[in-house]
Amino acid sequence: MSVVLSENQYGKSRVRLVRVERAGSRHELRELAVDIQLAGDFAAAYTEGDNRLVLPTDTMKNTIYALACRQALGEIEEFGARLANHFLSRNAHVARTRVAISEAAWTRIAVGGREHDQAFVHGGAELRTTVIEQNRTGATVKAGIAGLEVLKTSHSAFEGFLHDEYTTLKDSRDRLLRTMLTAEWTYASGAHDYGALWRTARQTMLEVFAEHDSRGVQHTLHAMGQAVLERIPAVTRIELSLPNIHCLLVDLAPFGLDNPNQVFVPTDEPHGVIVAVLTRS
Amino acid sequence: MSVVLSENQYGKSRVRLVRVERAGSRHELRELAVDIQLAGDFAAAYTEGDNRLVLPTDTMKNTIYALACRQALGEIEEFGARLANHFLSRNAHVARTRVAISEAAWTRIAVGGREHDQAFVHGGAELRTTVIEQNRTGATVKAGIAGLEVLKTSHSAFEGFLHDEYTTLKDSRDRLLRTMLTAEWTYASGAHDYGALWRTARQTMLEVFAEHDSRGVQHTLHAMGQAVLERIPAVTRIELSLPNIHCLLVDLAPFGLDNPNQVFVPTDEPHGVIVAVLTRS
Amino acid sequence: MSVVLSENQYGKSRVRLVRVERAGSRHELRELAVDIQLAGDFAAAYTEGDNRLVLPTDTMKNTIYALACRQALGEIEEFGARLANHFLSRNAHVARTRVAISEAAWTRIAVGGREHDQAFVHGGAELRTTVIEQNRTGATVKAGIAGLEVLKTSHSAFEGFLHDEYTTLKDSRDRLLRTMLTAEWTYASGAHDYGALWRTARQTMLEVFAEHDSRGVQHTLHAMGQAVLERIPAVTRIELSLPNIHCLLVDLAPFGLDNPNQVFVPTDEPHGVIVAVLTRS
Amino acid sequence: MSVVLSENQYGKSRVRLVRVERAGSRHELRELAVDIQLAGDFAAAYTEGDNRLVLPTDTMKNTIYALACRQALGEIEEFGARLANHFLSRNAHVARTRVAISEAAWTRIAVGGREHDQAFVHGGAELRTTVIEQNRTGATVKAGIAGLEVLKTSHSAFEGFLHDEYTTLKDSRDRLLRTMLTAEWTYASGAHDYGALWRTARQTMLEVFAEHDSRGVQHTLHAMGQAVLERIPAVTRIELSLPNIHCLLVDLAPFGLDNPNQVFVPTDEPHGVIVAVLTRS
Repeated sequence: MSVVLSENQYGKSRVRLVRVERAGSRHELRELAVDIQLAGDFAAAYTEGDNRLVLPTDTMKNTIYALACRQALGEIEEFGARLANHFLSRNAHVARTRVAISEAAWTRIAVGGREHDQAFVHGGAELRTTVIEQNRTGATVKAGIAGLEVLKTSHSAFEGFLHDEYTTLKDSRDRLLRTMLTAEWTYASGAHDYGALWRTARQTMLEVFAEHDSRGVQHTLHAMGQAVLERIPAVTRIELSLPNIHCLLVDLAPFGLDNPNQVFVPTDEPHGVIVAVLTRS
Repeated sequence: MSVVLSENQYGKSRVRLVRVERAGSRHELRELAVDIQLAGDFAAAYTEGDNRLVLPTDTMKNTIYALACRQALGEIEEFGARLANHFLSRNAHVARTRVAISEAAWTRIAVGGREHDQAFVHGGAELRTTVIEQNRTGATVKAGIAGLEVLKTSHSAFEGFLHDEYTTLKDSRDRLLRTMLTAEWTYASGAHDYGALWRTARQTMLEVFAEHDSRGVQHTLHAMGQAVLERIPAVTRIELSLPNIHCLLVDLAPFGLDNPNQVFVPTDEPHGVIVAVLTRS
Repeated sequence: MSVVLSENQYGKSRVRLVRVERAGSRHELRELAVDIQLAGDFAAAYTEGDNRLVLPTDTMKNTIYALACRQALGEIEEFGARLANHFLSRNAHVARTRVAISEAAWTRIAVGGREHDQAFVHGGAELRTTVIEQNRTGATVKAGIAGLEVLKTSHSAFEGFLHDEYTTLKDSRDRLLRTMLTAEWTYASGAHDYGALWRTARQTMLEVFAEHDSRGVQHTLHAMGQAVLERIPAVTRIELSLPNIHCLLVDLAPFGLDNPNQVFVPTDEPHGVIVAVLTRS
Repeated sequence: MSVVLSENQYGKSRVRLVRVERAGSRHELRELAVDIQLAGDFAAAYTEGDNRLVLPTDTMKNTIYALACRQALGEIEEFGARLANHFLSRNAHVARTRVAISEAAWTRIAVGGREHDQAFVHGGAELRTTVIEQNRTGATVKAGIAGLEVLKTSHSAFEGFLHDEYTTLKDSRDRLLRTMLTAEWTYASGAHDYGALWRTARQTMLEVFAEHDSRGVQHTLHAMGQAVLERIPAVTRIELSLPNIHCLLVDLAPFGLDNPNQVFVPTDEPHGVIVAVLTRS
């Protein structure tokens, strides 16, 4: 028997940056966090402690800042592609690179009913994400959303499910449906106008969530993914993860009170997890 | 020498609730987290393990849900006052109670340009807060904001400060100013229309933050607090806490790159903390 | 009416540092996080944006590192006192300073049954804390513990409590008692040997927690504080906060199963909060 | 074009449980968090909202508690296997199940130098983990560690690495090496005595971390994995993830101070990430 190094990769995570565009008096504010991972001919660093082919993760960090300075960021998919290209084109021993970027939303502060040119308020937990996976034969571009928490107070049921000896849940025709959407979709090669595509995907999922006559989280997840594929030809695949963040109706009968679907306890633990991938045939 | 129990209080924290108002097809969604603290004749529980006067914190939780069910919540200041009154009026041995409530923002999902009646998106980290402190002679009502993160890209300087042997910071005439606002203000007795007052206070602070020609975090904090006191006669005192969440200009000179106030590293640790209280004379 | 700046303070938080003592082959590892707050003649910075008396928080950070370098840290109470003295003695316009330090525990990795000289494992969430509050007339030294989570499976009851219309909790003679201890005690002037005092206080509280025949969280909290005051003459006051982190017995009767105090659901929300201060008469 | 549901799974996460064994006066305390995921014939729930084959995640939660009650938990690998078997054996339409369990460490409080029988202190962030993946042809049992933070103050270098135009890092022959170990290894079928195996794997990795003459994180990671494979024949594969949690030497030269590898700033962001898989040939 001998030990084999069968897979390896390394990189830098959580490289945070803010970039301000100051063309004229109307500033643009962008905030990103970048992760870089490289794989390739790095075995000697593991097995021998030979670092001659190891590009330090500190250099990756410097590179991110330098490339963020050289030109406007553009869409995060574009900035990610520049980073992926940089590491592959400069390092023949790198077989593939993965660049993941998340972008926080900042919106303008309204002053006297008008958007301020130079002052912003943070948009919350929602992130726009991208992952660029590139090797010597090509690149895959994914885009996504994380941390988008939504809740609907109607048109959500869960009935007719399987029962076994440990089932106590009752059928519900009218429950709250609350989730924290994570979605990641893949673009066909040649996709462009990433900002518009992303906004269409986001709006599509929000609209379907709101309007769907839900028979379960699975049912709504599928409808959301299907709509994205139907409305955006450039999307070839979408993966969605919808935790079921339970809001439990409070039992107030011990106090002689009726609770007609009004007062709920939201809970973080435990929670359901529903995941699926939709593609085109 | 003998040991004295000089202060004590107890209660329940993080009682979370969602309430849905279903009058007609347009639902209202509210999400709160409530803390209750009681102080009074509870020494025997500490010194003797005699629980006869101890209202269980589990009962406090039940009471919050029952009162949330009995009528519409109203503003959180009103719901808090009902809770504070409940515990004082029913328990002669309670000397004072403190009720703290935070409310998350949910906004309506837009579908086809119109707000949906029954589907919502979470508003992020910002919380509307209140604290009701009531004893046998009266009550104090405070309102506040927590978690409101803002950033301005202009009109922020920090110059002319004190230097000592450990000072390396350079004067800056144009830096990013980023903070996560926490504010808590006190209402004069008789205040009402809490929702409108809160929105005015929030908008006032946002506008001053955006428009102020800042010479430092202290300077902006004072301007924000002063404006609230000037515009809202019902406010008698305001406490503000503005961490200085540093965004550091990246030094790209080692790579021959100029960075004209464009690319910054946002950092969480360490951070400045600026706190002040403003009142009326 | 005019607006008055009635209180203000500012400083730097979360200045983290690791110090390694390398005297001989047996290294010592220390990890601290330091907060500094100054109050004094700073009003002009708020009202006028005049920063001439403002020592930058960046300078505070530099000072912490410089003083951490100049000599061995000693106990955190001693390092805190040096910092407090520094800011007061160098700045006549500073009226008072508050230095808060928390120290993480690192223990040695055991190799072949012996403690390694130069390799360490992190001790978890528990922190040793201190607060030094110093003004022109003297200083107060506090020490404490945060994040010490403990659980006892016997000798914990909660019975004979007050009932009202919203009480559903049943008497319990045998429940789990779980808490995350926060304690802060004050030393008489002239106290020394802070490390030994801290270890005695910690061990005293742990032993009382383990051995006390608890009739409630209040009862145990009081016994813990009383024991610290009785065993450590240098302690003049102690404040304890013991959340009641509920572990709820799971009802398995619907499945025909008996659950004789064996299987529980631990919950984070909501939780009880019990706070008290004990002093000497 | 039509949309295809190409993958799906669902389940319950963060089902937390405490179990107390009360055989005699010496109690045993266990605390777990369990995740269950099922995959199989569930497409109709997604595409049609037909829930007839959907076992509710609420039932999964009940099942976890019921099985935790029916007998002593045993090692988490054993409890996980019972859960996986349960769902597969009762549900012909389930093709495969994944059960992930993490266990927190609780150690006994020492009283008068002896371990207390019924009082415990929480062991911190470190978790023992397992993942059972079972389908109709067999099961894979993995075990692991998460959250084990370690630091060594000697025998850690990083030299001779690749340089490019964005490299500013200097060679270091003596740096701090700090990481938060995550490891997951796979057992050959027929493995047993999971507790002893886990303790051996953990101790092996700690010893190698402490004693290894590290030329880089990759080098130490490989040595740790290799040692586990060499010492534990039952392990067929191990995956390790070692973030490089940088501790940066503070530059005190501006203050005329020498800092001979003594005072460091620990940082959370950004951090290196080093991942590898080792197997047997």
